[in-house]
Amino acid sequence: MSANSFGGRIKMHTFGESHGRAMGTLIDGFPAGVSINLADVQAYLDRRKPGTSAWVSARKETDTLEIVSGIFEGKTLGTPICGLVYNQNARSEDYEKIKDEPRHGHAETVWKNKFGHIDYRGGGRSSGRETLSRVIAGAFCEQALKKVAPKMEIVGWVSKVGEWTCDESIAEKSDRAAIDKMPGRFPYKDDKFISKKLESAKAKGESYGGVAEIIVKNPVESLGQPVFHKLKADIASAAMSLGATLGVDFAEGFESVSKPGTEFHASDTTKQYGGIQGGISTGQTIRFRVYFKPTSSILDIAKKGRHDPCIVPRAVPVLEAMTAVILFDHWLWSKTDKLEI
Amino acid sequence: MSANSFGGRIKMHTFGESHGRAMGTLIDGFPAGVSINLADVQAYLDRRKPGTSAWVSARKETDTLEIVSGIFEGKTLGTPICGLVYNQNARSEDYEKIKDEPRHGHAETVWKNKFGHIDYRGGGRSSGRETLSRVIAGAFCEQALKKVAPKMEIVGWVSKVGEWTCDESIAEKSDRAAIDKMPGRFPYKDDKFISKKLESAKAKGESYGGVAEIIVKNPVESLGQPVFHKLKADIASAAMSLGATLGVDFAEGFESVSKPGTEFHASDTTKQYGGIQGGISTGQTIRFRVYFKPTSSILDIAKKGRHDPCIVPRAVPVLEAMTAVILFDHWLWSKTDKLEI
Amino acid sequence: MSANSFGGRIKMHTFGESHGRAMGTLIDGFPAGVSINLADVQAYLDRRKPGTSAWVSARKETDTLEIVSGIFEGKTLGTPICGLVYNQNARSEDYEKIKDEPRHGHAETVWKNKFGHIDYRGGGRSSGRETLSRVIAGAFCEQALKKVAPKMEIVGWVSKVGEWTCDESIAEKSDRAAIDKMPGRFPYKDDKFISKKLESAKAKGESYGGVAEIIVKNPVESLGQPVFHKLKADIASAAMSLGATLGVDFAEGFESVSKPGTEFHASDTTKQYGGIQGGISTGQTIRFRVYFKPTSSILDIAKKGRHDPCIVPRAVPVLEAMTAVILFDHWLWSKTDKLEI
Amino acid sequence: MSANSFGGRIKMHTFGESHGRAMGTLIDGFPAGVSINLADVQAYLDRRKPGTSAWVSARKETDTLEIVSGIFEGKTLGTPICGLVYNQNARSEDYEKIKDEPRHGHAETVWKNKFGHIDYRGGGRSSGRETLSRVIAGAFCEQALKKVAPKMEIVGWVSKVGEWTCDESIAEKSDRAAIDKMPGRFPYKDDKFISKKLESAKAKGESYGGVAEIIVKNPVESLGQPVFHKLKADIASAAMSLGATLGVDFAEGFESVSKPGTEFHASDTTKQYGGIQGGISTGQTIRFRVYFKPTSSILDIAKKGRHDPCIVPRAVPVLEAMTAVILFDHWLWSKTDKLEI
Repeated sequence: MSANSFGGRIKMHTFGESHGRAMGTLIDGFPAGVSINLADVQAYLDRRKPGTSAWVSARKETDTLEIVSGIFEGKTLGTPICGLVYNQNARSEDYEKIKDEPRHGHAETVWKNKFGHIDYRGGGRSSGRETLSRVIAGAFCEQALKKVAPKMEIVGWVSKVGEWTCDESIAEKSDRAAIDKMPGRFPYKDDKFISKKLESAKAKGESYGGVAEIIVKNPVESLGQPVFHKLKADIASAAMSLGATLGVDFAEGFESVSKPGTEFHASDTTKQYGGIQGGISTGQTIRFRVYFKPTSSILDIAKKGRHDPCIVPRAVPVLEAMTAVILFDHWLWSKTDKLEI
Repeated sequence: MSANSFGGRIKMHTFGESHGRAMGTLIDGFPAGVSINLADVQAYLDRRKPGTSAWVSARKETDTLEIVSGIFEGKTLGTPICGLVYNQNARSEDYEKIKDEPRHGHAETVWKNKFGHIDYRGGGRSSGRETLSRVIAGAFCEQALKKVAPKMEIVGWVSKVGEWTCDESIAEKSDRAAIDKMPGRFPYKDDKFISKKLESAKAKGESYGGVAEIIVKNPVESLGQPVFHKLKADIASAAMSLGATLGVDFAEGFESVSKPGTEFHASDTTKQYGGIQGGISTGQTIRFRVYFKPTSSILDIAKKGRHDPCIVPRAVPVLEAMTAVILFDHWLWSKTDKLEI
Repeated sequence: MSANSFGGRIKMHTFGESHGRAMGTLIDGFPAGVSINLADVQAYLDRRKPGTSAWVSARKETDTLEIVSGIFEGKTLGTPICGLVYNQNARSEDYEKIKDEPRHGHAETVWKNKFGHIDYRGGGRSSGRETLSRVIAGAFCEQALKKVAPKMEIVGWVSKVGEWTCDESIAEKSDRAAIDKMPGRFPYKDDKFISKKLESAKAKGESYGGVAEIIVKNPVESLGQPVFHKLKADIASAAMSLGATLGVDFAEGFESVSKPGTEFHASDTTKQYGGIQGGISTGQTIRFRVYFKPTSSILDIAKKGRHDPCIVPRAVPVLEAMTAVILFDHWLWSKTDKLEI
Repeated sequence: MSANSFGGRIKMHTFGESHGRAMGTLIDGFPAGVSINLADVQAYLDRRKPGTSAWVSARKETDTLEIVSGIFEGKTLGTPICGLVYNQNARSEDYEKIKDEPRHGHAETVWKNKFGHIDYRGGGRSSGRETLSRVIAGAFCEQALKKVAPKMEIVGWVSKVGEWTCDESIAEKSDRAAIDKMPGRFPYKDDKFISKKLESAKAKGESYGGVAEIIVKNPVESLGQPVFHKLKADIASAAMSLGATLGVDFAEGFESVSKPGTEFHASDTTKQYGGIQGGISTGQTIRFRVYFKPTSSILDIAKKGRHDPCIVPRAVPVLEAMTAVILFDHWLWSKTDKLEI
């Protein structure tokens, strides 16, 4: 068990500091022979990139992926895949001053206590920029999943920003392309509603938390392992490994715990199980939500830093990517569940 | 990564089927030289044992722990500790009839699809009885923690059963001994309130979900590892590896995400961070909640089986135990965070 | 990575002290649905048991295997398989006196320095009795291999005892049953030759080292993983994890390194590669040898203890078992080498 | 367990194909706060570089290390350290023709069978160039070891080339600097002896195997873990994870197994244990040897490729580096052996 690794059959290792030389991902255990469309991997990366709306962080990065190993003639080799994104727009000087003035709500102080020596520039490795590495791995896994389970679809959106709730009926009908077109990935009758709120928040130094919701349509069944690698356990671990997360819930969510059993388990539906029973996928839609705190860099010294008034929109592709990593990992794992002889 | 293993520096492996020969735990990586009071380990086990209230499962088990290895002359050897609890009251005949009739809301069908061959008796390994193994490991870890961090205290209670909410002001003031005296581990002005509800539920074939809340007072600081083994990620993984869990949240919980950042991060307190920042313990009280579905065995064929109308009270010692495993694991891990030379 | 675990896709965990309550094995990741003949597992265990010749250790143990979990109705469940052998003839009093008098050539002193607290009785966990746990796992794996690769055969023998060398032409023609009939598993024209040498050694307090040779006939091809889990790396690791081992070599062995390349790689044969190229099985016979020191308990205080004048004969089934674990582990691993779509 | 990872407390991940974009190393679990002299890391890398003698491979590479993450202001951050060496002199066209003509004694065919899709250029990932990644990790670990155990010294040399044996009395007295000055790292009264042999071999298309010998002077005691991570098991695994290795032995080597126990264990010395007992370091000099096959690329189609007539000299720094990784890994591991309270 390594601090910077995730997964069982495939291992995703992430590395890099926010203002260091590069961010990167190393994927081991990825099978040979999978055709990879690198333009699609880059497009996936671009989905989480800052700088695409008026209200997001001003840091400009092209986030261009360089593949260093593991791919030859367009296909995976079964050897470790290393992808790098060199950091370009690293305005370290903005952070010089916070070297000795840790920011309220940020991880600098705890990292400093723990490790003694830290990279204080932009959060170093505790920066949200680390999630870029996860998206690289997710993009690879999603391409493999498309081949082994063409009907499976992972779609996420922002279901809540601050006190505002999305319109679930719009969300449910949307696919990823449709949601990517929405500013804020917030399905709502008036597309610009949430953008205005966030622009205004940015202007006045306010920030919001919120909720990201992810569904997996037509998932492969029998994924997930008892006991400690139930699908819901791995998803929860992935969700809570992101910064600023406060909680995660599944199926119809935490409020459904108030229902009496006779109502909850009403046998004319199985929706209440959220596509996972006994920790294992049933083949029905998987559904979970991740809860995020408001961004913490609003009123403090780093105001001149480059931060979003709400990070949930940018968390959506990261959560989709992590879901893809988990699903492909468990798909591989399931190949040795039983010996059919 | 094994399906039945948990932890990084210590590895807890659990094994056993509900109606098989025995349940067991194997702990590897536990340091040598720790004095273990086995009576206290047994007492910890007894805290999750069925059969202590009128309304809980009728299965009678003494749950007597037998230590098979790893302890000599009252102290750990640094070798693997194996503890067993032989199953005694395994009324398999009750389950004969469900061999071909999987129960609604139970894991049998998904396990059958996945593994082909299952032990259908009482859920086999998907039974809640598996948690006994975790309590054994937790009891060992808590004894070690008492030595390295004598002021640290892990206390849990039931903060919600169905629609009823506990009295947090009573909960906060209570310690483990006080809560263990409450039927239902539900801190409330009228001790018998929840017992009556649960007895009545049992009588009429009803069940309830609920919420378990765990706090860690005076935790060691600097525990937790970036990036994928943040303390909150490991806790979430542990919580969601339990059966019937729907979600987990930290600090002030799900609902606090609605607050604007200026309010959430108000700098006169740090309570909103729940003792964890950047995934690492700050030394302040750690707080999280786990959400459970209502028990699923109410109205179906297994009615004659032995199930609780609400499992949350019995989940409390299991969650405390898992928390102890995580904290001791991370305490060991932290020994190599930095080289002080 | 745990100190007492071995394997990648299946994990074998061994536990138990020589004079503790029991020796045991926990196997995780073993696929569901494999029919297991427990009498054959017991028979495998009996092959390494002391007490079968005049010259071996006098410790009497029935070594009766008790399966605690993971098997139901004669087939594996895909859940952890736990097997125990309770220690019966644990004459601890013989060892009382060595509590404070560590034996020359034994591990007690180094264990004591390392762990502070040790079980000094019969070597505790450093005893050769630990290998019993490996044989249990090997027996399970071999039964699975028989199903997936019926023609594969793992056969070992003693190719050297002290200065005496076996007759390879007899060894090559023998199968496991034939070798098990030889006292000392030493293929030689005169069956009793080596027994006489060992009886005489036992009488005069002498001991011998030697060499065990293992071949795998008709192995599955494409087993082994680059880079760090080459088949030869895992075999070497397994061999050197046994006590008293001094070295391991493959194919035609140590001495073949003296040959010039033009001779070594003469292209009319591939025997010089020993069935492994680039760390991966080619389908041809795999061959390796393990070198053992003479037993160390000859002239010291533990003379009254129960030790063999040569442990190599008893090491043969242990090495065969470890080979089976490695081959089945890699067979499972190979299922995800490539995606065939 | 990943195919391309090594170690327990620190994890070294290696990646890269011989003629791909770059070779690289990712080290996770390396403690924070260790000052790193990158010039010394580069110097270590240069010790294994081809192109330093008349008789070695003609491939010209500067092998310039680029650190991508994990180091800030000259010290480790406790985050993953990624080091890259971009491949420059990748004359792939030389290998075009072997695309469909696998070389005798090389790994191409087995890789092709296993993975379906391979990088056939210069062996792809099965190339000896992969060892560069290990040297990077070793150089970091050795710098850390210098701080925690300043008197510890890892020194290796070539003790045999083909049929020629080095002069052990010269070897024993030499340190690393002295040996690095010897062409061929072959301690011998006439420095040029082995160079002449190798030049002549290169000219006539001959190659030689040989033996590398490594000693660790003044090792930290109590390193190594029972049961499966005995120091000798991890060293054997590392040695046999290199290409072209045939075997490994310890202490006084495989020939010493012929001695009777009374002679082997003669109690006036402990040299026969080679600094390791029960798998754990005793503090005395550790000694092992690794046996290499003759290079296989001599007479075949790749003659125009770039290969050494004997790879043992270049294997020496790789084995030293792997030894450093193992020792530092076990040093970290030993921090949690016992709880001293």
